[in-house]
Amino acid sequence: MQTANSSTEEEIFRVRKLEISDKNKGFVELLQQLTVCGSISDEAFRERFEELAKCGDDHVICVIEDNNSGKIVATGSVFIEKKFIRNCGKVGHIEDVVVDSSVRGKQLGKKVVGFLSEHARAMGCYKVILDCSVENRPFYERCGFKQKEIQMVKYFV
Amino acid sequence: MQTANSSTEEEIFRVRKLEISDKNKGFVELLQQLTVCGSISDEAFRERFEELAKCGDDHVICVIEDNNSGKIVATGSVFIEKKFIRNCGKVGHIEDVVVDSSVRGKQLGKKVVGFLSEHARAMGCYKVILDCSVENRPFYERCGFKQKEIQMVKYFV
Repeated sequence: MQTANSSTEEEIFRVRKLEISDKNKGFVELLQQLTVCGSISDEAFRERFEELAKCGDDHVICVIEDNNSGKIVATGSVFIEKKFIRNCGKVGHIEDVVVDSSVRGKQLGKKVVGFLSEHARAMGCYKVILDCSVENRPFYERCGFKQKEIQMVKYFV
Repeated sequence: MQTANSSTEEEIFRVRKLEISDKNKGFVELLQQLTVCGSISDEAFRERFEELAKCGDDHVICVIEDNNSGKIVATGSVFIEKKFIRNCGKVGHIEDVVVDSSVRGKQLGKKVVGFLSEHARAMGCYKVILDCSVENRPFYERCGFKQKEIQMVKYFV
């Protein structure tokens, strides 16, 4: 039974790249569980989507769609920073990881972070980094991350 | 005398954007004071420089050249991340700030961080962030930053 259930969940919750039609599947509402994110007009969404699409593999947003409900239930993004240090090395930056509160405990967050980390590795990054709250440290440790530095911020608005 | 000296230093240490000829002015050697950065061939340098130039204002590397010695003595970079959250907001990421050990104490680091922060603000970012060691926190606090989260990392090599 365990195996059968796992297999089913594998099929219901697949990670894929963001599509423009995901706006109508609750993508923006999902982001609202993460932080401030007012409603976005279809035009503004399309504009930002196309700006990001121009970056190709250098900026990827992935989602998990619940294939039963047709809702987007998890997301995260990664962009590839090109540097001069480390012999013109690259670093992956993971941002905006969120899992719908109704589907927590299914390892979907781990799946998203795994997908994004693997993308950074495949793009030739020597490391992938992210900032998180102290409360989320155990989750990222389970994803294979270690705490290194501290994050500093300056707000303009 | 104080004023005259300050004015002179203002002219000697101006912040400007990285130019391809800065490779011959000690730019790579300066980065080596920050972290691992082997020698970079002229071809590899040009290739990376041109890749970054394509990003335009979305990825800026600034330098301070000592106009007396013709050496690059400080640098830092900022790239602009485009998001869906915060109503399609943008975030500036400051990276790879370093000041030559021979010119510490002249506030050049503060000048670099100020230049990069101002660029992020002018680009419409709602915040600018960076990761640093606990030891460097006081410096960034003097630059107007506050500690917020923690940085997690996963190395591939």
